[in-house]
Amino acid sequence: MHILLTNDDGIYAEGIYALYLELKKIGKVTVVAPDAERSSVGHGITLAHPIWQKKVNRRNKFFGYGISGTPADCVKFAIGVILKRKPDMVVSGINLGPNDGCSVFYSGTVAGAREGALLGIPSIAMSLDAFLNPNFSYAAKCGARLAKIVAREGTPKGTFLNVNVPNIKRSQIRGIKATHQGLIPIHGSFQQRTDPHWRNYYWMTGRLPHRGADERTDSKALYRRFVTVTPIRSDLTDYAYVEHLERSLPKTV
Amino acid sequence: MHILLTNDDGIYAEGIYALYLELKKIGKVTVVAPDAERSSVGHGITLAHPIWQKKVNRRNKFFGYGISGTPADCVKFAIGVILKRKPDMVVSGINLGPNDGCSVFYSGTVAGAREGALLGIPSIAMSLDAFLNPNFSYAAKCGARLAKIVAREGTPKGTFLNVNVPNIKRSQIRGIKATHQGLIPIHGSFQQRTDPHWRNYYWMTGRLPHRGADERTDSKALYRRFVTVTPIRSDLTDYAYVEHLERSLPKTV
Repeated sequence: MHILLTNDDGIYAEGIYALYLELKKIGKVTVVAPDAERSSVGHGITLAHPIWQKKVNRRNKFFGYGISGTPADCVKFAIGVILKRKPDMVVSGINLGPNDGCSVFYSGTVAGAREGALLGIPSIAMSLDAFLNPNFSYAAKCGARLAKIVAREGTPKGTFLNVNVPNIKRSQIRGIKATHQGLIPIHGSFQQRTDPHWRNYYWMTGRLPHRGADERTDSKALYRRFVTVTPIRSDLTDYAYVEHLERSLPKTV
Repeated sequence: MHILLTNDDGIYAEGIYALYLELKKIGKVTVVAPDAERSSVGHGITLAHPIWQKKVNRRNKFFGYGISGTPADCVKFAIGVILKRKPDMVVSGINLGPNDGCSVFYSGTVAGAREGALLGIPSIAMSLDAFLNPNFSYAAKCGARLAKIVAREGTPKGTFLNVNVPNIKRSQIRGIKATHQGLIPIHGSFQQRTDPHWRNYYWMTGRLPHRGADERTDSKALYRRFVTVTPIRSDLTDYAYVEHLERSLPKTV
């Protein structure tokens, strides 16, 4: 099995290295990841700038390719330029920070897996529920275990697995749960500051929403100390509403 | 009705101005759009850099706020800083270029509308099927007409309308159609070039896919000269596969 590994925290991040060590026990791993952090770039791609690649060593050995683009770029670039063919699987992560709920729209890590799914490749996004004091070792083992399951069973066309792992001791984890995407929105909150030239600027703050009451969601199950596995679709059509629109839209404008 | 208008081609683009002229016939319009082009940024948001705003005039009159961020930033910033409340509707566009099929993942214009939908606001993304010689006037009329319909009828929670308009004469348009999101992937294609210092770099080319055979998709209907209206969900859970995972996932790792 040939696994393409990417992330959005960049090729020098701790999370991607931990996952690499576990994945190479189960297959050949090619690392193609952003050359620096690209958090919260969503499913952006780079069309208006050139893309550069460089070979990156870690621990004095060749590790992978650092790309001057987004995670979605990395998947496209790996297939188009580096591998010149599709890998058997795309794994993205391990992200520093959770990607439950509406984070699936903002996360570059999740977009890396979605790009794989769009191209017909079984794909997994891995995230750790911590910004401080991360311990990636259990999440990395989880990622390799789920990769083996996905390799054996496949996934529905266009669907990938979005996995979130609590940042606690293995013995405290209550299990692995198939979950729904939480839907509580992440409201923008802005801090106004003044630059040295007396001009105002703003920082968006990363305030995460309340985890909600719905026990079936990834957000709540993660809070309850479960590893969450949410299958995410690439067909976004609201089919029920298509039928309504067919009756209610004007025929012409 | 108070409409928040954004786009990804930037506040100085032709498409947003054409749409503004039509929307202000049906409501109060606040324009909060990127201060320069932000095409293909997907649903990215700006957390690692400060955000700046500036007031922008067009035709010697105040037009709106130019923001140093993405379309999703613009919607959050408009609500959090400029309006200090939610508008009644978010409209995004008119994009120069189609956003049918898998473009819904890469497009900043579509993300502007999705951000509105995530925040519970009825939202519409408008795109014109042209990169050259665009004529936005009919698409702008379409946008205002659909905005009136959405204002009257609402949309399901989390769902927004993704609208694509052919760039042809009004008399040649065959009608308005409720469609499904096309699913044909956009493969990355890369041109290798050499910089003046003999280093290789790559351009991702914007090769769009074949429009496919499925007459129900936005991609094919747009090709057939219909205005396409695809309702796009924000709940991405693959519910059928959750049930499968519940049976097949291991209880622990």
